[in-house]
Amino acid sequence: MHLADLQTPALVVDAESLEANLAAMAARWPGETLRPHVKAHKTTALAARQEAHGAVGFTCATIREVEGMAAAGLGRDLLLANEVLDTRRLGRVVADGARVTVAVDSPETIAAAAAGGVREVLIDVNVGMPRCGCRPEEAGALAARARTAGLTVRGVMGYEGHLQAWPDPEERARLTDEAMTRLRAAHAEVGGDVISGGGTGTSACNPWVTEMQAGSYALMDSTYTAAGVGYAQALHVLGTVVHVSPARPDMPAYAVADVGLKALGMDHGNPTIPGAQVWFCSDEHVTFAPDDPVRVGDRVLVVPAHVDPTVAYHERMHLVADEEVLETWSVDLRGW
Amino acid sequence: MHLADLQTPALVVDAESLEANLAAMAARWPGETLRPHVKAHKTTALAARQEAHGAVGFTCATIREVEGMAAAGLGRDLLLANEVLDTRRLGRVVADGARVTVAVDSPETIAAAAAGGVREVLIDVNVGMPRCGCRPEEAGALAARARTAGLTVRGVMGYEGHLQAWPDPEERARLTDEAMTRLRAAHAEVGGDVISGGGTGTSACNPWVTEMQAGSYALMDSTYTAAGVGYAQALHVLGTVVHVSPARPDMPAYAVADVGLKALGMDHGNPTIPGAQVWFCSDEHVTFAPDDPVRVGDRVLVVPAHVDPTVAYHERMHLVADEEVLETWSVDLRGW
Repeated sequence: MHLADLQTPALVVDAESLEANLAAMAARWPGETLRPHVKAHKTTALAARQEAHGAVGFTCATIREVEGMAAAGLGRDLLLANEVLDTRRLGRVVADGARVTVAVDSPETIAAAAAGGVREVLIDVNVGMPRCGCRPEEAGALAARARTAGLTVRGVMGYEGHLQAWPDPEERARLTDEAMTRLRAAHAEVGGDVISGGGTGTSACNPWVTEMQAGSYALMDSTYTAAGVGYAQALHVLGTVVHVSPARPDMPAYAVADVGLKALGMDHGNPTIPGAQVWFCSDEHVTFAPDDPVRVGDRVLVVPAHVDPTVAYHERMHLVADEEVLETWSVDLRGW
Repeated sequence: MHLADLQTPALVVDAESLEANLAAMAARWPGETLRPHVKAHKTTALAARQEAHGAVGFTCATIREVEGMAAAGLGRDLLLANEVLDTRRLGRVVADGARVTVAVDSPETIAAAAAGGVREVLIDVNVGMPRCGCRPEEAGALAARARTAGLTVRGVMGYEGHLQAWPDPEERARLTDEAMTRLRAAHAEVGGDVISGGGTGTSACNPWVTEMQAGSYALMDSTYTAAGVGYAQALHVLGTVVHVSPARPDMPAYAVADVGLKALGMDHGNPTIPGAQVWFCSDEHVTFAPDDPVRVGDRVLVVPAHVDPTVAYHERMHLVADEEVLETWSVDLRGW
């Protein structure tokens, strides 16, 4: 199928850029040292490509992602890097033969893991972002509690999410060092082989983790590009121009394409369109001022500001090379 | 099933508030004068309730919505209030017996409607928001062109989207009057029975349309509540507290629930939580400071800032009364 035959809006992935991104991250973090985060693409077919590049384990954010990865035969070592209280579904995945490790940071989440049939955990440590994770000085006691509950404590995790898109790379590296000092202090109390953390934005300045949880590098978005992380924009939302308004005395020229805020994660702001200024998005439309005139029926490639919530809106993504659709992948890890 | 048995995050709809909202709008716009917009809820089961309150026709924003409504037996009079160039799927819906009217605003969209087997159109008129829609003075010529192409022109539509949440109600009414003056001028040139427009925010100050396209009133969001439109918040995203951090010298107390930006439309900003201050959202979490202490495992009800893109993330919504789940509805009109 040709790109022109796709109904829009449609997620399209440039095959060459994707492959280059996967190869570059795998070169920096080879084999088991990379634990790609599937929340950024929610697509088992893409995860299989990451496995082909050497990844053994994967990071998940939801129970659905864990279930889907296991069902796709990618369950050799799944980390649910998130706290959960209802662990029954995870227990079933374990019983079916997948290896599932869950983040815990409280007596309640430890009890839930043990009660649900989960066998392995990481102690989740707050390394500076006010979200989940215990304080470093609590980590040792939580690890002891988990072991008493019959769980194997594989080590620690700590996500420096607040630093991923820090503008200045040197300051980002310094702050990552500080954050990982907290994580290493916790690890000294917890033990185990695993220090898990990091993301695309700190993947070049975080040598302290034993496994890197990067996800966005595969597809990328304009926020990470602006942060200078060095991966190619592989993902676009393909749209069709449905309206053109020529310049008039009371209004400059603008055009409208069928890529709206239900096709884009909007928490990082408007998307960008190369060769145009984006004015605003509404449910099913983006209004933009193109540098050069466009016509109704033209196609446009829209760059999302945040890849993860963009992908989560779409049922499928199309792998494309030279305007040909090579494969169509189901975004099969959506929902909860 | 009890509310406490729902896995989270989950869309929950208060049955009493929904019913009150549907009744109130149907009282103001009875029978055919209300053409509810399904883009706000994407749920045929909810549309059936709107039909039970007297609605005959419905407004859609996507081809998928048209197809799904027709398949659910709700295709007596469907308006696709959006420009489309690939009309083949719409033609099939018409051939299968549904009545489908499509918005057109250019020679290209008229040609597409005629070529695709669509028989009826409205001329879409720009009434002040730079999106789709022709200029009022172009409407007559476009109508003639559509008739020459063999299409029935039922009238005009014009959506004053930029006024829906205008803060001052009197100014909103005055600006709506101005916008509808443009639409009525176009209608005078176009003819036909239909003047379609409006939304929840202008439903009390737009007496000029023959059919009101309101959608958000059924479920509501914090943006429309702030605009004082007078409908009840029927929709919440139910979450579970997964982490609690007590007050410390360097950080006030906060909690984290499993309702993140993949469960919420974020283009209107952060959600709200009654009895708490929301700090920020990440993919699967909301971090908030509760007025009164909460515990891990507690449930929270999160109010989205924008209902439409919130619903579009969810596979189902649960109709709830007195903490009992009465029905579970598939959000079956998602995607394109």
